[in-house]
Amino acid sequence: MTASSNDMKSSRRAFLRGALAAGGAVAGATAARAAGPDPLITEVQPWASGLGEGVDATPYGLPIKFESDVVRRNVEWLTADVISSINFTPIHALDGTITPQGCAFERHHSGAIELSKKDYRLMINGLVDRPLVFTYEDLERFPREQHVYFCECAANTGMEWAGAQLNGAQFTHGMIHNMEYTGVPLRTLLAEAGLDAAGDLSDKWVYVEGADASSNGRSIPMDKALDDVLVAFKANGEALRMEHGYPARLVVPGWEGNMWVKWLRRIEVADAPVESREETSKYTDTMADGTSRKWTWVMDAKSVITSPSPQAPIRHGKGPLVITGLAWSGRGAITRVDVTTDGGKTWQQARLAAPGQPMALTRFYFDHNWDGEEMLLQARAHDETGYVQPTKTQLRDIRGLNSVYHNNCIQTWWVKPSGEAENVEIS
Amino acid sequence: MTASSNDMKSSRRAFLRGALAAGGAVAGATAARAAGPDPLITEVQPWASGLGEGVDATPYGLPIKFESDVVRRNVEWLTADVISSINFTPIHALDGTITPQGCAFERHHSGAIELSKKDYRLMINGLVDRPLVFTYEDLERFPREQHVYFCECAANTGMEWAGAQLNGAQFTHGMIHNMEYTGVPLRTLLAEAGLDAAGDLSDKWVYVEGADASSNGRSIPMDKALDDVLVAFKANGEALRMEHGYPARLVVPGWEGNMWVKWLRRIEVADAPVESREETSKYTDTMADGTSRKWTWVMDAKSVITSPSPQAPIRHGKGPLVITGLAWSGRGAITRVDVTTDGGKTWQQARLAAPGQPMALTRFYFDHNWDGEEMLLQARAHDETGYVQPTKTQLRDIRGLNSVYHNNCIQTWWVKPSGEAENVEIS
Repeated sequence: MTASSNDMKSSRRAFLRGALAAGGAVAGATAARAAGPDPLITEVQPWASGLGEGVDATPYGLPIKFESDVVRRNVEWLTADVISSINFTPIHALDGTITPQGCAFERHHSGAIELSKKDYRLMINGLVDRPLVFTYEDLERFPREQHVYFCECAANTGMEWAGAQLNGAQFTHGMIHNMEYTGVPLRTLLAEAGLDAAGDLSDKWVYVEGADASSNGRSIPMDKALDDVLVAFKANGEALRMEHGYPARLVVPGWEGNMWVKWLRRIEVADAPVESREETSKYTDTMADGTSRKWTWVMDAKSVITSPSPQAPIRHGKGPLVITGLAWSGRGAITRVDVTTDGGKTWQQARLAAPGQPMALTRFYFDHNWDGEEMLLQARAHDETGYVQPTKTQLRDIRGLNSVYHNNCIQTWWVKPSGEAENVEIS
Repeated sequence: MTASSNDMKSSRRAFLRGALAAGGAVAGATAARAAGPDPLITEVQPWASGLGEGVDATPYGLPIKFESDVVRRNVEWLTADVISSINFTPIHALDGTITPQGCAFERHHSGAIELSKKDYRLMINGLVDRPLVFTYEDLERFPREQHVYFCECAANTGMEWAGAQLNGAQFTHGMIHNMEYTGVPLRTLLAEAGLDAAGDLSDKWVYVEGADASSNGRSIPMDKALDDVLVAFKANGEALRMEHGYPARLVVPGWEGNMWVKWLRRIEVADAPVESREETSKYTDTMADGTSRKWTWVMDAKSVITSPSPQAPIRHGKGPLVITGLAWSGRGAITRVDVTTDGGKTWQQARLAAPGQPMALTRFYFDHNWDGEEMLLQARAHDETGYVQPTKTQLRDIRGLNSVYHNNCIQTWWVKPSGEAENVEIS
């Protein structure tokens, strides 16, 4: 027997005892049910006495029927038609950091298109030695990289500038997902096209464009293009979904989702930005005086408590309660998350499920003993640059109330003694 | 403009040039197509001129129709009925390390059961102060952890002991998946039940049992139970799928998949192992002399090239070729993977997509310039204990030919000049 040799016995004994010290006591919850016999324990159940489903039932598996409410949802008044449509990741019902593709939010400007690998072309043109057209198969021949990154729409939390509007973490913060991408660095493809022709690269830009009817196009400064941008074809191991840009999309780590061009068809090297619709009339930040900031690409540090929250109320009454949420920063790794239960009077440091990774979601936990009284729950993220997530008041002091994009303020959930929660604003 | 200040210009210039040095040249592939006009470039395509699918189309998204062959498959002669059925992860078509739940292999002993959270109970009994029954809601109240782990069936590659049998990485090595699990450490639940009553813990075992008709049950030594075992309820962020043990399963990092009991219903603390069917007549390793090794829980270091492989032939002819695969070890992190194209005469070190993580899949790449001649492709994994994956001959010299389980030998793919590949054995 490998695991209980005498040597191991003595050396492990202290560890074993130590291991038991961890963990919160929720005995009250279980003791209550010990009063009478529980037929689920004392009787043989149907699922324990017959055959279940065979392996041929679902060549590609789906969530069990009991989880049918864990889906992307839109907000009708936000997305009246296919043009400019949005739905939201059910972050209130997820845990961990990976977002399954099936429930990762969608944002299209003219609908999700069905583009086969066979019909896929990617052109690189402009200030290059050799303008090139790549097929999908060509892309597969270049050295690949893998990274987990979050993708957040610049408009995430955008409806909250004027007040507490949408009653659920899915709707206030669900325009985000976090996946493991596999793709070819954009710098590799640019090198293949002979970028040397462009001269001094630090003045240059790439203009990236999608193959859908919106031809969603954005200008990206060359230093970012050559740094960590990927032309990705897999997410969480498998092909991108149609709604996420199959067969290939751009991944622009830490930068607003609109730049992560889906169904990527063209990359033009240029000596100036295009100043396209999507970077002038849209995706700019209008200040209190009516002027607009442009080139606000990076998604600043942000966090949200996903449970409890309006769609994930507390059902079990007072006592041990897992408070959990997500934190992220487009400028690097999350280093710390604080949680308050009293609207910011006192803060305590949350536990990160794993050390923060650059430009990726970080899961945090705050293991709380709830007294059953109301709470004003907030989380506050810190990133490796030293930046601390601002309050709504701090953000409004600088930005005013004319913005839609880049709202990274601290979110407040009012948790009532009933366990129900509500989106509120506190000064 | 934030990204092209003068300061940044000068400091970034060297970097920008340096970045372009990376990457392989596949210009030949694209130049060929530059000969005539390509209507996919010169003509407006239907998907670029009409509206695509709206966000309400798929509340829970599925793979695009073009990927309908990337599914779990069984081998008919291996799984004739629901009892003892298996299917295989399509690893030949995946990249990265995360396995989406939808195509993660299934192994049941009496079929996958439909068990709701409401009907879920987990009992801890035996040598504990307070035998307890947990509901699903109770489990959610304990402090949680998150880890990415591989789960490999002990029988993975088991059909290859006698010779090269199954013609595809999906079938030879596809009884494996790799997910980000969220759950409660088993030690926390055992502490809640008052494990102190058990006395000297290093002699003790837990017997874990599933709620399905097979009541799949296994004995686990206490030091493992208190180390890293989780009672998990989420995988890759969302609820476990029915076929993976919804609503809660055991996660036993690095140990054979049969111990990762699904639909977990009971944990008994005992002073001896149960010696159940699943750890005596099954999941033991019969040696050449007819005796059997038991308690061979750990999955030793192993690797496989997933592409090219019989189901993923080379379609593009000679020139740049991405050779890629997976490596893993139940004893810790993968530290190195070697690749040979000549059946082991010469080995070269592959590139790991990210540093190996303990008991998790590691993706490796070997960027090759293929001369169009036949190859005998193999990969060889090294783990942090210094262990090196053995050849089939080395393994047979010790284990004989009577085994089914724990075949972690080096796999050979014979890649022909046509690009087709075949499962072969070389001495």
